[in-house]
Amino acid sequence: MSEELRGALIIGQSGGPTSVINASAYGVIRTALDADCITKVYGAHYGIKGVLNDELFVMDEEDREELDKLMYTPSSALGSCRYKMKDPDVDDTDYKRILEIFKKYDVRYFCYNGGNDSMDTCNKISKYMKKVGYECRVMGVPKTIDNDLYGTDHCPGFASSAKYIATSIMEVAHDTVVYDTGMVTIIECMGRHAGWLTAAAALANVSERNCDLIYLPEKVFDMDKFLADVEKCYKEKGNCIVAVSEGIHYEDGSFVSEAKASATDGFGHAQLGGLAAMLANTVKEKLGCKTRGIELSLLQRAGAHVASGTDISESFAAGKAAVEAMLDGETDHMVGFECTRGEAAGYDVTEQSIAGYECHTKLFPLSDVANYEKHVPDEWINEEGNDILGGFIDYAMPLIQGETPMKKKNGLPDFAKLKKVLA
Amino acid sequence: MSEELRGALIIGQSGGPTSVINASAYGVIRTALDADCITKVYGAHYGIKGVLNDELFVMDEEDREELDKLMYTPSSALGSCRYKMKDPDVDDTDYKRILEIFKKYDVRYFCYNGGNDSMDTCNKISKYMKKVGYECRVMGVPKTIDNDLYGTDHCPGFASSAKYIATSIMEVAHDTVVYDTGMVTIIECMGRHAGWLTAAAALANVSERNCDLIYLPEKVFDMDKFLADVEKCYKEKGNCIVAVSEGIHYEDGSFVSEAKASATDGFGHAQLGGLAAMLANTVKEKLGCKTRGIELSLLQRAGAHVASGTDISESFAAGKAAVEAMLDGETDHMVGFECTRGEAAGYDVTEQSIAGYECHTKLFPLSDVANYEKHVPDEWINEEGNDILGGFIDYAMPLIQGETPMKKKNGLPDFAKLKKVLA
Repeated sequence: MSEELRGALIIGQSGGPTSVINASAYGVIRTALDADCITKVYGAHYGIKGVLNDELFVMDEEDREELDKLMYTPSSALGSCRYKMKDPDVDDTDYKRILEIFKKYDVRYFCYNGGNDSMDTCNKISKYMKKVGYECRVMGVPKTIDNDLYGTDHCPGFASSAKYIATSIMEVAHDTVVYDTGMVTIIECMGRHAGWLTAAAALANVSERNCDLIYLPEKVFDMDKFLADVEKCYKEKGNCIVAVSEGIHYEDGSFVSEAKASATDGFGHAQLGGLAAMLANTVKEKLGCKTRGIELSLLQRAGAHVASGTDISESFAAGKAAVEAMLDGETDHMVGFECTRGEAAGYDVTEQSIAGYECHTKLFPLSDVANYEKHVPDEWINEEGNDILGGFIDYAMPLIQGETPMKKKNGLPDFAKLKKVLA
Repeated sequence: MSEELRGALIIGQSGGPTSVINASAYGVIRTALDADCITKVYGAHYGIKGVLNDELFVMDEEDREELDKLMYTPSSALGSCRYKMKDPDVDDTDYKRILEIFKKYDVRYFCYNGGNDSMDTCNKISKYMKKVGYECRVMGVPKTIDNDLYGTDHCPGFASSAKYIATSIMEVAHDTVVYDTGMVTIIECMGRHAGWLTAAAALANVSERNCDLIYLPEKVFDMDKFLADVEKCYKEKGNCIVAVSEGIHYEDGSFVSEAKASATDGFGHAQLGGLAAMLANTVKEKLGCKTRGIELSLLQRAGAHVASGTDISESFAAGKAAVEAMLDGETDHMVGFECTRGEAAGYDVTEQSIAGYECHTKLFPLSDVANYEKHVPDEWINEEGNDILGGFIDYAMPLIQGETPMKKKNGLPDFAKLKKVLA
């Protein structure tokens, strides 16, 4: 334990929401409220913008019961932003303002809960405060359904979306096979550059084959090959379920979703209905079969009712560890996970292969984390680039275990309602 | 108790699936398996087509444990069809074939599990068997997420989809308010002619206002009025969440989803992305704000993981009651529900208003049920035609209570896997 630093803490949330980002925020808030030397706990409204605009909510004023509900309330309860901080050497206006606010509220602890860009923000603020000699400990708490943060085994938020996707694909697969007339169903998952969420479609194949073809942005997409794959599957099975990442792209790097009228897709209005609708239409035109495009859209990152219990616990633990590390004198790091896994079992998931999973928090230097992207390893994608191999199952299966402790009120989610008292 | 009729039973499923149609089928199967005078229980593959094609699965051969899982396995486990039976006076080919199969397997009990058309099929088969003097008791078991069957208080399947829709809208609403930049989100629900499912968006407003505008097919849609409604809401709140039925239509009866290029919507490719995408695009063009269209698609009728416990129990009860009624000598009816409700409380749902709910099965003559459609009553829709009133809340709230007993395996649904042994 280093020397005690007395002062207030600010927690901000940034980037796209997840169904468990509030569990992380609550890990920070709860631990900070319980810490003697943390004099006040503030929540920044709309991330760093809330600091810049002097809009801070006093977490000490909230009812314990409502705060507890943050464990299963999706999205960013404090509000979020996508605000890119300038290089302080070029323009330090924002940094001066942040320092002013930190001084005004005697802020000595700053936690930022987000993805790549948020870790970059964290890093820049930390370095600036050091430079100007203002003592403030800074800690990043990761969240991103995209699971693309460097260093950490996985990111809080990924597993809950993965569980949503696998569950939904299992259900949709049951729906699409009911008639003897056949159908090709295209399911679009989020993840513009990294295919982790789309790969989660493979989890739907553990108990029985539900998803026939899976296309990640890690591989170059070829429309003719895709149509041939779908045709082959449809002819063999009479049905075909396909998962595609929103980020699939052609060899020249252009997104398939943005493709203009061409001989291949035949029209130029893909932006209207998104990728799934466009691919469904292309398959329909080429193969003449019944098709349906389903975009999982915001549902996949907001679906708290089917969040992973493991993800919720770990998200809370990450927030808690961030505050504990700062109390111990640490700064300028991101909390991540280091995991060990049970015996590899691939698609033949066993109790042993899941039970061997252990997860510990670990600190990663912010400068290592910011602005890198982690992709699905090549060895977890099949040669043809249309399926996911057992290595991914071993990796992801332990993460989606356990159910949410979500309380219901009148049969519907009982989400946290914060008072949001401004400082 | 009428005289005992010994013989086999056939259960068939028809029309679009729901997340609880298998609970009804299981109500039939379980009760039939336990009945002494029912000698064999067959499941027809792909509904009435399975009878015509002599493709019957022997339910007696299935493992009890897997059959039990039908309680929470979505979609039609036996397969479904959309097969319209001809008028037997015009063409009795199918009826002769059905009689032949009934005789072959000594079928004396026939249960059909479906919507409007299925009740019509039931009715025709029943009348034909009577005409030719073949003793066979026929009973319809309703299912339809559309909730549009005549006579019964509500239809098995509706409540689970309603719960899915309300839960998803609450979650999506949390997601869309995180930024200070604002967004208009259009959520498209199923129900081509009846607006019951879209009205369920109002259930998301009980704890706090999550869905701002709701448009049902019961009212004529006016694009200019719609855009004005959205603009007003967006300007007041900074965000706007809209639920629309896939069946909204203009004064001339044409579906909004099928509208071609016009001054109002500005393009002619609505079929690509569906109604939600088209409306989102129209709003974007007119108001210049960020928009998103979300089509709940098959997810809303397959979402067994968030099915209503009440719906599951009632669906099973309907199937059970069908067999019990036939054993009692009844025929040519559909099992429906007669309900009493607690004190009206509208949007201020109280424990009392829910606790007073009671539901009993009741027989309705098939000829009364077939080919009618029940719509959302006018007095439950507001004057402006863009919101749902408290009467609907009193009606629907008790139906979505309780959670599914779904068992999970490795964190994912453990759906029934039937052996499907052909007779």
